[in-house]
Formats: sequence, C-alpha cells, structure tokens
Amino acid sequence: MKTVRIGLAGFGTVGSAVYRNLNREADLILERTGILPEITAIAVRNPRKSRPGGHFPSALVVRQPRDLVKRDDVDIIVEVMGGCTTARDLIFAALRAHKPVVTANKALLAEHGRAIFGESNRLNVPIYFEASVAGGIPIIQSLRQGLVANRFHLIYGIVNGTCNYILTKMSEENLPFEEVLREAQALGYAEADPSFDIDGVDAAHKAAILASLAHGGCVDFHQVHMEGIRNVSSIDVQFGHLLGYEIKLLAIIRWQSENKVEVRVHPTLIPRTNRLAATRGVTNAIVVRGHVVGDIKLSGPGAGGDATSSAILSNIVEAATHLHSSSDDRSPAYLCAKGPEVVPISNVVSRYYLRLSVADRPGVMAQISSILGKAHIGISSVIQPEGHEGKVVPLIFMIHDARFDAMNQALKHIQNLQCVKAKPVMLRVESFES
Amino acid sequence: MKTVRIGLAGFGTVGSAVYRNLNREADLILERTGILPEITAIAVRNPRKSRPGGHFPSALVVRQPRDLVKRDDVDIIVEVMGGCTTARDLIFAALRAHKPVVTANKALLAEHGRAIFGESNRLNVPIYFEASVAGGIPIIQSLRQGLVANRFHLIYGIVNGTCNYILTKMSEENLPFEEVLREAQALGYAEADPSFDIDGVDAAHKAAILASLAHGGCVDFHQVHMEGIRNVSSIDVQFGHLLGYEIKLLAIIRWQSENKVEVRVHPTLIPRTNRLAATRGVTNAIVVRGHVVGDIKLSGPGAGGDATSSAILSNIVEAATHLHSSSDDRSPAYLCAKGPEVVPISNVVSRYYLRLSVADRPGVMAQISSILGKAHIGISSVIQPEGHEGKVVPLIFMIHDARFDAMNQALKHIQNLQCVKAKPVMLRVESFES
Repeated sequence: MKTVRIGLAGFGTVGSAVYRNLNREADLILERTGILPEITAIAVRNPRKSRPGGHFPSALVVRQPRDLVKRDDVDIIVEVMGGCTTARDLIFAALRAHKPVVTANKALLAEHGRAIFGESNRLNVPIYFEASVAGGIPIIQSLRQGLVANRFHLIYGIVNGTCNYILTKMSEENLPFEEVLREAQALGYAEADPSFDIDGVDAAHKAAILASLAHGGCVDFHQVHMEGIRNVSSIDVQFGHLLGYEIKLLAIIRWQSENKVEVRVHPTLIPRTNRLAATRGVTNAIVVRGHVVGDIKLSGPGAGGDATSSAILSNIVEAATHLHSSSDDRSPAYLCAKGPEVVPISNVVSRYYLRLSVADRPGVMAQISSILGKAHIGISSVIQPEGHEGKVVPLIFMIHDARFDAMNQALKHIQNLQCVKAKPVMLRVESFES
Repeated sequence: MKTVRIGLAGFGTVGSAVYRNLNREADLILERTGILPEITAIAVRNPRKSRPGGHFPSALVVRQPRDLVKRDDVDIIVEVMGGCTTARDLIFAALRAHKPVVTANKALLAEHGRAIFGESNRLNVPIYFEASVAGGIPIIQSLRQGLVANRFHLIYGIVNGTCNYILTKMSEENLPFEEVLREAQALGYAEADPSFDIDGVDAAHKAAILASLAHGGCVDFHQVHMEGIRNVSSIDVQFGHLLGYEIKLLAIIRWQSENKVEVRVHPTLIPRTNRLAATRGVTNAIVVRGHVVGDIKLSGPGAGGDATSSAILSNIVEAATHLHSSSDDRSPAYLCAKGPEVVPISNVVSRYYLRLSVADRPGVMAQISSILGKAHIGISSVIQPEGHEGKVVPLIFMIHDARFDAMNQALKHIQNLQCVKAKPVMLRVESFES
C-alpha cells in the first residue's frame, strides 16, 4: 500500500465531487491499484460558505492555493478552481516544487499551454488533464496511450453539452434558439451569461487541447477558428432536415499534410447517417480517425461534478504511479519544441449550405449563380422550398468544396445584389467520409 | 531513447499487420514515447509459406515459439498465434523468464485466465491484452485506468462483428439468416465453419474477460451463459421492428450486488432508441455504466489486422514502459484470489419476447395466459399481428421481468398445448435504463 497525499484547490461543483467520490472510493482504488489516495489539504476561497455538495473538516483548510504546495503532507496538486491567474501561479509553483499536477482547467491549458507544458517538460514533472476535455470520457488517455501508434488524420466531436442541448431541442421540437436558451438557463444547462458556451469559446479551448495532443505541439486557443450557434435559426434546422442533415456545433481537427492542421469550431451540417447526428442533449461524443485503427468513437457525459471527478480520480492514480516509479518514460503531453502549423481559416476548404432571402422574380437565380460561377464555386444543388411563397422567398444552395475566402468574397457580391433582401446564412457541411 | 526488442509469435492476419505497422510507425512511437520498438525474432509455423500480408527477413525466423523466450535479444513476447496449447506454453515460459507478454488471444484468457493471471501476479510479470476484446477500441485500458474509480454496474456490448453484420443485414434488407450467413462467408466476414462466431463462443470469451476485469476476479468462460443467433429468424426481426426494437447479439455483464454478477451472451431485443441499436455491420460497441461517471460508450472496428495491431502496439509501449521502470505499481489485471460469483442463468431476471405459432381458434389466448398467470409471469402486451391469417397464426407476448427458470417451466407447459403448433421462440428484451 502506498499513500498519495493530495492538495485540493477549489471546492465548487467539481472540487466537492472529487472530495466526495475520493473519500467514498478510496478503498476501491486501493484494492485495484495498491494506491490509497487521501486529501490532506484544501484551498477554498471562502471556507465559511455553506456547501450543499459536501462538508470537509475545517482542519484541512489552507488560506491560499499556493500554501498547498509548501506543505510536506501534500504530494500532488489537484487544481479545480478554474480561472487563469491564481490557477496558473499554483500550477507553476507545484511543478517547481516537483509535485505532479492534475487539472480540469481547459481555458488555462488552451491559453497558457505552451508555458505550462514547457515547464512541465523542462522539470520532468507531469501534468494530467483528462477532465479538461469531454468530462468523464477517457479521450485524452486514449489519444496518449490506447491509440499511440496512430496518426490522427481527423478528430471531430461534440464537446460542448450546452450547445448540443440547445441544438437538440431546436431540432426535435422545432423551437427558436432564444426560447431554448432561456429554458436551458432555467434548467441550469446554460449560464446566466451563456457566451462562453454558445459562442464556441469552451469548444475552442477543447479543440486547442486535442489538436496539441494529437499533433505533438502547442496549438494556441487564439489559432482556433471559432463560430458559435447564436446565428443558427430554426428555419435552417428545418431545411437541414429536408436535405437529410442535422446541425451540430463541432470541434474539427483535420490533418492536411505533414505539419499542417485545420483546427476549427463551428455549427456544421452533418448527414443524419453520421455517427454524431444522433448524439442528443448534453452528451459529448468524439470520433478519432487513426490511420492504423480506423474510426473510433467515444461518447458519454461531458460535464457535471461526478463525471468530471471520475476523470480526475483516474489522473490521481496516474500521478501517484508516477511518483512511486523511478521511470521518466512517461510520454510527454505536449512536445513544445515544434508543432503543427494551423491552416488559416481563409484557406480551409469545405462544403457549404447557403440560404438567401431573395425577391420572388425571374432572373434572380441567374444573377446569383453567375457570381458563384465566376468565383469557380460549384453548386451541387439548389432548393427553393415550397410553402414560402411571398415577396421574399428562401433560396438554398448546397455548395461543393470551396475555400472560405472564395466563399466570403462571392458572398459580398451576392449580398450587394438588389434582389437579396437579408443577410445570407452560410453554414459548413461536412460528411467526414474516409 | 530506449529500445524494446520484441519476439513475435504468429504471422497470420494480425501478426503480419503488427510487423508492418510496427516497422512503419517505429519513429512515430519513438517520438511520442521515447521508446523504439523493434522486432528481433519471429516464430512462424511455416517460414516458406507465401505471405501476401508482408515479408520479413528470414534471419529473424526461429523454429519454435518457445525459442523466442530463450533469446537474449528478446525483451517482450507478442503472442498472436491463437490456439490454447502452444500459446499457453509460450506465455508461461515468457512469464517465468520475466518477459512481459502482449496477447490478443481471447480464447486462451477466457479459458485459462485463472492459471495465466495467477502466474503473472505471482511472478509480478505483466500480461497485456487490449486486443483481446473489441479490436482497436481501447476498452481494456479504459476499464483498468480511465474509469478506475468506478464500480461497473453494467457493461453491455456488441463484441462480435460477424453476428452484427448478419443481424444488420437481416434487419435492413429483410433477408433470412441462412442467406445472409452465406453472403458473409463469401465476403470473408464469416468463417467456413461459422459456429465460433454465430453460436456466441467468441462473444462469450470476451464477456468472460470483461467480467473478470470489471469485477476483480476470474470469471471462467464456462460460467458464461451463451446463446447464439442461429435461431433468430427474420420474422422475429420484423416483429421486433413493429414493436420498436432491434435484435442484437449482446454480451451483458450486470452487477447485482456485492460479489454477484450476471454474465451472459444472447440475442436481445433492444429499443431502437438504445445507443447500440444503430451500430451497424462489423462495428463493435460497448457501453460501460460506471457508478461515478455514468454511461460511457466506445465503438469502432472490432477486428481486422490493422485495428487489432493498433491495440497491440499500444500494449507494446505499456510493456516497454514497465520494463524500463522500477515500479511494481501496475494495477494487476485480475485479482485471482477472490472474485465475483456468477449468478446461474436460471436465476437471472429479464423481460422476454415470446412468439408462439397457434391454431387460429377461440380460447387459445385464455389457455396460454392462464399458464403464465399461474407461474406469476406478467404479460405486458400481446400482439396478434395482422396479415398472418390462416390455420396457424403468430401470437406475440411481451413479458414483464421474469426469472429464466420460471419462463422455461411455463414454456414447457405451453408447448404441450394442442393449440401450439411449433416450437415457441423466446428472446430476451433489455432496455438498460439507468
């Protein structure tokens, strides 16, 4: 039996679940691994706050997160505070004290990964972050270990439960975005300020982490092209159905060639036969295309205290195993020295769904298709759906593979046409065929 | 850089894929892990056989698998020969020589697991077997590591691609079993002697391994209740659709209470909304219900040389990391000292689909329902589908939770009724709601 003593920083939804589940399952973990995890100190902002999630002995409380690092009875640091300032300081202090770190902090890793993993590599002190992407789903471990012999030609996934909840409701109940958002807020699936989720920031953090891990470098959050779901309207969801598609907010990491990778987050039309089309509600799902193994899909709860703490407990065992081992053969999480080049979004090629609101008169189609033709943008189908007769009618183009900059250029011309009566809607279409 | 020298036993579909992919991806593995894998010796039955899968230098060939163990230039043994005699001897020899083992041999582990894992534990020499269940899907690693803090209340999955291919075809194209089986044989998805797959033997091997791993003991293959798909007829597939179900061959491992577990393989009606209902063709898919994390699903290619070799290469890295580490903290694969008690199938409770062929005359329903009623078996619905008028008509009962022995007893009485004109068909129904 080997005891591992944990300093826990943060006691919110995730922190309290880690505390509760660790204490409840310590014997199970001991039986399975020979390691007995024990929380010996906790840093909380306000020790007197009432905590429905669980209570803890006040003797464990320290004033400052950094105090955890200084204590002799703390072997590893579990950071579940969130935020990028105190958490960053804590992690650097822990690494420099040669104490392994377990963190769920996707924002921090996506925005300061280069510095943090650089320090981790330099000092040979590991940092574990299974909980930072897709909650309880063991995607990080699968990329690092289970699929280690694979180049990851494609990774795509639903990694934000809030957005998927909203899009599922819009799709199944034909409701407008704003109404579903309000409902999600009432149910606690969306924050009072929902922008972090619905503008794609959270998904882009996760995309940056997955891209870095998959391609051996540090892809920075600011290199990720990001579009949220605010502009997805229920009319597009319905037209999508008509054409055989569902709209999902996807994180997409596509390897183009040696050292070039697309990393993007945006609403995407995917065929209803795609493996992610039926992923409902707050569930997360990720498809990994390995060049040896083929397509592997992992799905499950991507958030919540319990699911996230399952990942953190697994990382605690990894960290403890590392501590009790003389080996330095752990694969580094990121190889910061080099890394892939992120393709600018303007150069990224995809298919498009384009919905225009146009005057219902002859010659309109000719004007628009002429602009697309001159830009060498191929139309794969055009639909003017029935039931929308009036002065202004919807006109939907499905566009063959086109570069984003070419599409943008053509769109500028199109929206200047007199016959075009509203801002065009442009959504990417992906089928992810191998 | 640390080199790990591998003795490869077997050069069939899997062995040749391991050789090819390992040589092709050795640099990638080195870059990611610091470990350079190298195959230094190969045992093949017939070195002169022509091998479309790949060639290897004849200098590497040894005569007998056990010769691999004796060589100084072999650090770990990769066993992909299959079979239970020579493979067993090889693995014991390797363990005793303190050489870690990587194997894909599910039959061997399911039938001789107690002895093999006992020896592995006693000598503290690890054996890795990711490829033994669901090919390239990292299910073993997820159970052992990523979900280590979870008790596995339920594991269910499609773990035999051949059966799922046949059932998918039967469902989608309304074809009879025999015809689809012949087609699968022509395409190479089923063996000339298909009994190993279609009678559930292969799935039961995998169920035994998963049950042992999940519940910390050695569940023997012979304790697994096993029914294959030979008796699934297309009429039952169609009636299943009518009722909202798909029929899948599932491996089910359900934890009842402390130390009691159901381990069974049988065709199962699952609701079309279940997460496995849409798993098509040769794809494998497994749902793991962890008491902390909730339901996690993993799916992907469950067979084939490349997918399987992806898992084996991952295990080679694990084995190499172990070799270069002083640690003995690796979680043991099986805790052989104790383990769960497998519940006899007669005591297992489930719902049932019961199809009778009965004479089309008054009083039949009363006779049958009286037998069920006396046995305290509750009927949840009865359907006499239209379009089957004649002297003999189908009559379908959906049965509430009932013990298997009670169902069997009642069925004996029912089939003795004069009005029952053919052997009744009884299939289990599961919805796996949490």
